[in-house]
Amino acid sequence: MLDWDFRGNLDMQPEGPLYMRIVGALSEGIRTGRLRPGVALPGTRRLAESLGVHRSTVLAAFRELVSEGVLEARPNQGTYIAEVSGPSEPGAAVCSSPAVQAPRLAHPRRVRSQAATLTLSHLPCGADFPSVPLARAYRRAIGRHASDVLDYANRTGDGSTFGMLRLREALAEMLSRTRGLPLAADNLLVTNGSQMALYLIAHTIVTPGDVVAVECYGYQPVWEAFRLAGAKLVPIPVDGEGLCVDRLQELAKRTKIRAVYVTPHHQHPTAVTLSPSRRRNLLAVAESENITVIEDDYDCDFAYDGRSVLALASAETEAQVIYVGSLAKVLGPGPRIGYTVAPPAVLASMARRRAFIDRQGDHALSYAVAELLEEGHLRRHVQRLYGVYRGRRSALAHALRSELGGVVTFDVPRTGTALWGRVAPGVDVERWQARARERGVHFHVGRSFAFDGKPCPFARFGYASLDEDKLRIAVQRLVSALPRPRSSTRPVCDVL
Amino acid sequence: MLDWDFRGNLDMQPEGPLYMRIVGALSEGIRTGRLRPGVALPGTRRLAESLGVHRSTVLAAFRELVSEGVLEARPNQGTYIAEVSGPSEPGAAVCSSPAVQAPRLAHPRRVRSQAATLTLSHLPCGADFPSVPLARAYRRAIGRHASDVLDYANRTGDGSTFGMLRLREALAEMLSRTRGLPLAADNLLVTNGSQMALYLIAHTIVTPGDVVAVECYGYQPVWEAFRLAGAKLVPIPVDGEGLCVDRLQELAKRTKIRAVYVTPHHQHPTAVTLSPSRRRNLLAVAESENITVIEDDYDCDFAYDGRSVLALASAETEAQVIYVGSLAKVLGPGPRIGYTVAPPAVLASMARRRAFIDRQGDHALSYAVAELLEEGHLRRHVQRLYGVYRGRRSALAHALRSELGGVVTFDVPRTGTALWGRVAPGVDVERWQARARERGVHFHVGRSFAFDGKPCPFARFGYASLDEDKLRIAVQRLVSALPRPRSSTRPVCDVL
Repeated sequence: MLDWDFRGNLDMQPEGPLYMRIVGALSEGIRTGRLRPGVALPGTRRLAESLGVHRSTVLAAFRELVSEGVLEARPNQGTYIAEVSGPSEPGAAVCSSPAVQAPRLAHPRRVRSQAATLTLSHLPCGADFPSVPLARAYRRAIGRHASDVLDYANRTGDGSTFGMLRLREALAEMLSRTRGLPLAADNLLVTNGSQMALYLIAHTIVTPGDVVAVECYGYQPVWEAFRLAGAKLVPIPVDGEGLCVDRLQELAKRTKIRAVYVTPHHQHPTAVTLSPSRRRNLLAVAESENITVIEDDYDCDFAYDGRSVLALASAETEAQVIYVGSLAKVLGPGPRIGYTVAPPAVLASMARRRAFIDRQGDHALSYAVAELLEEGHLRRHVQRLYGVYRGRRSALAHALRSELGGVVTFDVPRTGTALWGRVAPGVDVERWQARARERGVHFHVGRSFAFDGKPCPFARFGYASLDEDKLRIAVQRLVSALPRPRSSTRPVCDVL
Repeated sequence: MLDWDFRGNLDMQPEGPLYMRIVGALSEGIRTGRLRPGVALPGTRRLAESLGVHRSTVLAAFRELVSEGVLEARPNQGTYIAEVSGPSEPGAAVCSSPAVQAPRLAHPRRVRSQAATLTLSHLPCGADFPSVPLARAYRRAIGRHASDVLDYANRTGDGSTFGMLRLREALAEMLSRTRGLPLAADNLLVTNGSQMALYLIAHTIVTPGDVVAVECYGYQPVWEAFRLAGAKLVPIPVDGEGLCVDRLQELAKRTKIRAVYVTPHHQHPTAVTLSPSRRRNLLAVAESENITVIEDDYDCDFAYDGRSVLALASAETEAQVIYVGSLAKVLGPGPRIGYTVAPPAVLASMARRRAFIDRQGDHALSYAVAELLEEGHLRRHVQRLYGVYRGRRSALAHALRSELGGVVTFDVPRTGTALWGRVAPGVDVERWQARARERGVHFHVGRSFAFDGKPCPFARFGYASLDEDKLRIAVQRLVSALPRPRSSTRPVCDVL
């Protein structure tokens, strides 16, 4: 209990009577598992003192929670987090947005529901996931392959630091079918998510001091992986056609560029697809300037107009293209399955370092995912999600247009699970985000993705984690959270 | 099929008629999953040509395998690997030593059994593993915690880059109970095995050029992790009391030592426990010379005389001790669960880098292992293994003494799952190993563990992976494989 940051949790509660905020903070702590059943709470006097509130406020909060069965008052002992009465049902699994998770309490229905925070995330949520087939696949993996699951990879024929052969075969088949990459298992390295792939790529191709070009909006953890390898990162602007290849070319005239890291299918986070002419130019520049192209195909599964753009890596080119992908957008980011397609020498070097990082991936997961791929579960799941996400995309786009037409302008994304909007100059995006949080809705501001970390008039609204009704409620909350317009100030950064 | 190294597999077959070696090579390829059901074999003419044998030899091998149901001759089409008729039963899981695995074939019992290679490994094998509780724990993990299993760690309260809270709590409880380390969950970082822990530690504490002292016999992948961080490694001799601390002290007089990496409980690979006076001296030197002690407690679970030596990290000292352990010797090395106990700043720095390597561990595995720990399964499993391994230790020691008394001398290990023997001067250890392989038994030579990589008159015989009968058979094979004694040459390296 004492390790738990009560004050911090209290500050994050929505506005309301102080005693109800204490109720909310404790409920949240219990729900997230930070406060576990059977743990003793500090005395009300001490707690009141440490929070700087009157003791009667704490007493009121405790009474409320005892009446709900969340806390338990033990005579002459003190107040405790109530014990769990029994396991929740598998069916109780709900979206991962914190406040809509099933509480692990004696009487879930009687727990005071806070205003459930709706997170506009681009990542799938648990409720959309086929957990029954996954659980079955795990059981089979352990039952049929106990030795492999429990052993080092290289003691058995069916795995190696490149990843389990059977999983590589299934992934190769998937990528041949969906991404125009005619592969064999040996062209693939499987890693714990694409993050590990990019960490390994960075440490394989970068010599400290090398310049690596990146998109000026992107994903910070990948940039950090390149920095850890000693790369000097240079941001290249992104516009409505994707990476500004002419700017890359200009840079190449001035300095040797070792590699360029791009998200051509669906630029992260702006959702722009690299235009055909830019694709050609990028490969031409890479070829002539000897720049390795690192293609992160992180979000290729949902092309709503039916025209999926093939991977850069599938093009006829003399340029070296290293292709990276993951199942995070299909399986969720939890099961860490990423893959790299690259020339044999690059893969071998990656595998060598990987052996000294964690030796091998998770065999049980590898078998389970291989089975989901082989039996078509994953393909059917993607097809189902495709329909679901298309509906959510329309619902969100429609709600934003009708409720926030003057505030957010955007193109409906052709692919992916998030929408990138330009916010009207009069609106302070960061203030809007803070006020939205208070009103129970969360979205990302452009700044989170900006290389320079400066405020910019953009916001990102994901639609993977909420159903259509919740998306509409989220937009209503966004409306209610809108700050009063500022006097017109120019946006600080305005690339797109 | 074409990717498969037929020639290489053929060369690895035991001596015998050529057609039977082809049978063996194909069986092996199918068993290990390299050759999958339904795959077409090349024509007999082409295969014979590429192997440089007469076609009738290949035909004989194919006939044999067709008669066994391993291959399938399809009229006018060719010869195929037979389809699997049905899943093998969970109970069919056997030891992971390649040749005793259950074949994934239509008629397992009719597959010609090769001379099963017996591997004298210090790692547990699948047959000893409680796979039913593990499968159940996975099912519950996915059923009850689908959202967490599928999500990023930091979006839920129950996980972080430090590892899942619930698992850290269970591990903290275990280490408090068994290793004299009174911990809370916050003192622990969970990683994908101890290899990742040591990679992160190396990158946290080492500045390129720093000297790190290591035992002169040890585990190469850990040394490599330190080298990748830029460390200069200096080997310190090991004798019958463990690390020669006076030699460490001498080194410290000459050069600044950043850290020393040790395996005090059960030196890897020599099985020696660091003596009490050396423990005291090591901590004293570390304190006075400001050397960080990295304690790898990799094999602390089986103290056969009932006196488990506490971890160095549990001692009263001003020295900085970083403690690393894993569940590899209990759960097998497949489920990647390692943990580090270290000062908060070290853990925080490790977690920061980890976020850029693979972001988080496997949540399904974390929940499953937490449950096995919480419900006492793992403790009971260790108790059971303790009895099993004690019996195997005696069986191996007895067989070696009676059959190879003049060849191998050793102390019966007080802990762990392997025995380190000095081999008589007249015996060429590497030749013995090669001949033993041909006769179906595998052990490690001392050279594999030597920092200088030079031959030395030692061998390591693990007893975790074979039952007592198989251990006795293994020793008989060792006897039959003994090379004729050389004329007396002095051993090249002779530290112990």
